[in-house]
Amino acid sequence: VPLDELSIIDRYFRPLAGKGAFGLTDDAGVIDVPDGCELVVTADMLAAGKHFLRDDPPETVGQKALRVNISDLAAKGATPLSYILSLGLADDTDDAWLRGFTEGLRRDQESFGIELLGGDTNAIGRGIVISVTAFGSVRKGWMVHRFGGRPGDMLYVTGEIGAGAAGLALLKGEAGPWDAASKQEQDQLVRRYRVPAPRVELAPALAEFASAAMDVSDGLVGDCDKLCAASGCTAIIDAETVPLPAGTVPESETALAQLLTGGDDYEILAAVPVAKQDGFSATAAAAGVPIACIGLLIAGTGPVSVVHEGRPLPLRRRAYVHAMAGKP
Amino acid sequence: VPLDELSIIDRYFRPLAGKGAFGLTDDAGVIDVPDGCELVVTADMLAAGKHFLRDDPPETVGQKALRVNISDLAAKGATPLSYILSLGLADDTDDAWLRGFTEGLRRDQESFGIELLGGDTNAIGRGIVISVTAFGSVRKGWMVHRFGGRPGDMLYVTGEIGAGAAGLALLKGEAGPWDAASKQEQDQLVRRYRVPAPRVELAPALAEFASAAMDVSDGLVGDCDKLCAASGCTAIIDAETVPLPAGTVPESETALAQLLTGGDDYEILAAVPVAKQDGFSATAAAAGVPIACIGLLIAGTGPVSVVHEGRPLPLRRRAYVHAMAGKP
Repeated sequence: VPLDELSIIDRYFRPLAGKGAFGLTDDAGVIDVPDGCELVVTADMLAAGKHFLRDDPPETVGQKALRVNISDLAAKGATPLSYILSLGLADDTDDAWLRGFTEGLRRDQESFGIELLGGDTNAIGRGIVISVTAFGSVRKGWMVHRFGGRPGDMLYVTGEIGAGAAGLALLKGEAGPWDAASKQEQDQLVRRYRVPAPRVELAPALAEFASAAMDVSDGLVGDCDKLCAASGCTAIIDAETVPLPAGTVPESETALAQLLTGGDDYEILAAVPVAKQDGFSATAAAAGVPIACIGLLIAGTGPVSVVHEGRPLPLRRRAYVHAMAGKP
Repeated sequence: VPLDELSIIDRYFRPLAGKGAFGLTDDAGVIDVPDGCELVVTADMLAAGKHFLRDDPPETVGQKALRVNISDLAAKGATPLSYILSLGLADDTDDAWLRGFTEGLRRDQESFGIELLGGDTNAIGRGIVISVTAFGSVRKGWMVHRFGGRPGDMLYVTGEIGAGAAGLALLKGEAGPWDAASKQEQDQLVRRYRVPAPRVELAPALAEFASAAMDVSDGLVGDCDKLCAASGCTAIIDAETVPLPAGTVPESETALAQLLTGGDDYEILAAVPVAKQDGFSATAAAAGVPIACIGLLIAGTGPVSVVHEGRPLPLRRRAYVHAMAGKP
């Protein structure tokens, strides 16, 4: 018996509906923005075979769809509120997939205090496409932008860089600086690819101390290029100061570059004025978020310089880019 | 040369960015909800071959993607503010398609006073998937719901019912009550399928006078079932009072049922208490929106009764449903 949209909503999505969703029985939801706050909105679309693998467990697909959006909210200093889920299902998407997917959503709704506000479910033929629009709140005027960084500001990154790219490469059987990882380390790298850990605990520190911030989703170097372009400056990153995940041993500069330009980190890159470094570090430590100072913003334009052992690190690419076809 | 996401944003989407979008250079946008208002959020996903035809002009695809969402906002009594666009492009989507699609968006942003707030662009392989999340504002507590209708309330519908379904059938070469339409009438029916006309002018009248409302997108009868279910009652529709579009001549009850249960109308179905009928009619007339009284809500549960020449109209389906595959 084919499932229709209404029975999918009844069975899988209604239990996830939060305040303002009217039990998903209406055509729209309502967001009540807390007094003195403004609403921050972000969106990420995930497609099977592009942003997750077709045989990834559906629970982790649901978690990833939410977490990549929550990561954007955190980088803007915002607290998660709710989300809209538009879902394009393949003709052969079955009940088991939907059950796992919504179980992943349920778990992360609880972990991150975010609720389903509404959405749309469709059969689209081939592939699965997940489109999430997520909402967060921030004190009015306190959203952290990509712009706002100034020459002299120090550059920080949370956690470790390269775990997501390493996990994806391991799943694809590609060689690289993760080859010597133990079974347990490999599992952890794969886990980081499938279920990123958005740094929501850092949001208040960013709102208070950062001059600019963004989440690192397409590779540290390329994303730093974007922050600098928006801030009207450039930067130097000292590659030796960038924390790398356990199990990755970059024995060549090529291998190191693979980690610094891979995608799927969902860590946060932040610029912090020198006078605010102590406050930022202390607040991050109190929040339990590991941070590392990896360089600084400098006057100028153009791509960020990545230095390794005192010399420019050769980079064959700067970011993980999903190429788009077309005739410009 | 393949287009990448950044050049697509630069070329096509940045010119559409509105207030709060930060020129699409950030990871999130900000919505400032007018004082005393609440934010109404709705979402619709459109997939090539399902919600529009692969050879529909890209301008009309852009217009339809926005208008189906604006129609939901209007039915809730809300004024359009902004929208998020997540776009999954096919590997062979070319520059001409993007140019036409964004031209359609631009035109309708102007027509409906709505601005692009942000989004995401991806290559997803096959097909095109368009996911829009739209925002509107309504006076706090004045959103019109599907629930709220009471037995005795009169049922109204705007415009004409069946034009969208007739237009789609004509494009597919399917026979029906549109067979005798003149070339000009056929063009108009096809136009209504491709470019629906959301009833934004009626939003204030709905907020003031309607007890319940929704837009008619999946067929009048099935959508009326939904409004009644949410309102805890049922209804009688007098088929002879439902306005049909020029060029459609339902010579059989089967043909009449095709029009009343086809999709893609994007008209508004509203329940109005008897004491408010005069106010509703006068306000709709002043706004230039044609309305017709087509029945009334009655106590009870279950499917709405459609009466034709005093007898129940036989209905082989109640709504246009995109079947979903799956193993429940």
